[in-house]
Amino acid sequence: MQVMENLVRTTVGMSTNIVWHECSIGKLERQNLLMQKGCVIWITGFSGSGKSTLASMLNRQLHCRGHVSYVLDGDNLRHGLNKDLSFKAEDRAENICRVAKLFADAGVICTASLISPYRRDRDACRALVPDSMFIEVFMDVPLKVCEERDPKGLYKLARAGKIKGFTGIDDPYEPPMDCEIVIQLKDGKYQTPKAMAEQVVTYLEENGYLKA
Amino acid sequence: MQVMENLVRTTVGMSTNIVWHECSIGKLERQNLLMQKGCVIWITGFSGSGKSTLASMLNRQLHCRGHVSYVLDGDNLRHGLNKDLSFKAEDRAENICRVAKLFADAGVICTASLISPYRRDRDACRALVPDSMFIEVFMDVPLKVCEERDPKGLYKLARAGKIKGFTGIDDPYEPPMDCEIVIQLKDGKYQTPKAMAEQVVTYLEENGYLKA
Repeated sequence: MQVMENLVRTTVGMSTNIVWHECSIGKLERQNLLMQKGCVIWITGFSGSGKSTLASMLNRQLHCRGHVSYVLDGDNLRHGLNKDLSFKAEDRAENICRVAKLFADAGVICTASLISPYRRDRDACRALVPDSMFIEVFMDVPLKVCEERDPKGLYKLARAGKIKGFTGIDDPYEPPMDCEIVIQLKDGKYQTPKAMAEQVVTYLEENGYLKA
Repeated sequence: MQVMENLVRTTVGMSTNIVWHECSIGKLERQNLLMQKGCVIWITGFSGSGKSTLASMLNRQLHCRGHVSYVLDGDNLRHGLNKDLSFKAEDRAENICRVAKLFADAGVICTASLISPYRRDRDACRALVPDSMFIEVFMDVPLKVCEERDPKGLYKLARAGKIKGFTGIDDPYEPPMDCEIVIQLKDGKYQTPKAMAEQVVTYLEENGYLKA
């Protein structure tokens, strides 16, 4: 399929000289080199639900198994990718998804963790990424639990009216209806980062993203 | 150095819980896994100077040697990264550079080929990327030669006034004054793509970007 696509692109490129100069090494070749299938792992959930913790531990576990992975994190991207650029707010998630898609195309397992509260925005991201390369992970942690944890003190600020439009307080969160992975509490408590990451790694293994 | 930085970030992370959750696997660890040093190879030059051709062949040569590389190309990015987003024109090169920087941070040898005619814009990109991770490649091909080749027919359109602000015709190109690599004509003719790519690979080898 990819090879076919490349052939088509190459033909287009030769006839018009306009696009897809780089088609000679395609996604499949990169997958074979890296022994893994690039994909976008999109972690969504309330602030304080453990998105960044999961992303970090997942990255570590994949790295230790010799896989090439990278984390695009709301916290660190704020200091880089989207800083100072002329973005509309609603384009931010989409821009991150476009970048994640490029990483996946490059063969990297790319994790993006963003609250991404609206279903339509997450679906728009999914639609950008080719079939089966988008893996949505829902941190299914009740608001109450996240607010009790409040690791950044943001819920306190939001309740005091010092942050407006805060997800869960004065802005809605729409949980996924049909996502690939749901991370849940165990006996009402957060799972360990290791256990959460293993759940995702198992999914990747069982669905052919990781080769030996 | 990187380890130090990570330690600092980790400390910051633990005390405030705000940033750099992902520091546990850093740039150095990724370099060791991939046996290469991620970097941004920024190819600049007139339309028709061979930027995309070089990028494509370089990507192929690196891949065949087992290196992880990726091309961000003005032609393909136009269909993806910057499409429909609320970008000011002057932010485009910078956004591509930020993405390339993320790839380099992930350990990938990331080639970006853009006309990028203004010195201040290229310098701004260089300033975004940590020391020695930005390699500027100048396609030193005279305008006359590029216009004779005119592979996309764009010079013809620009001369006819159908494209405005076209680099070399009614918009300036400022050649680099001190870049890492200069690709020149040989006996007044384009070098082969293979020869051009080998010049860059040799630079990467001699400067420690590629390990065996």
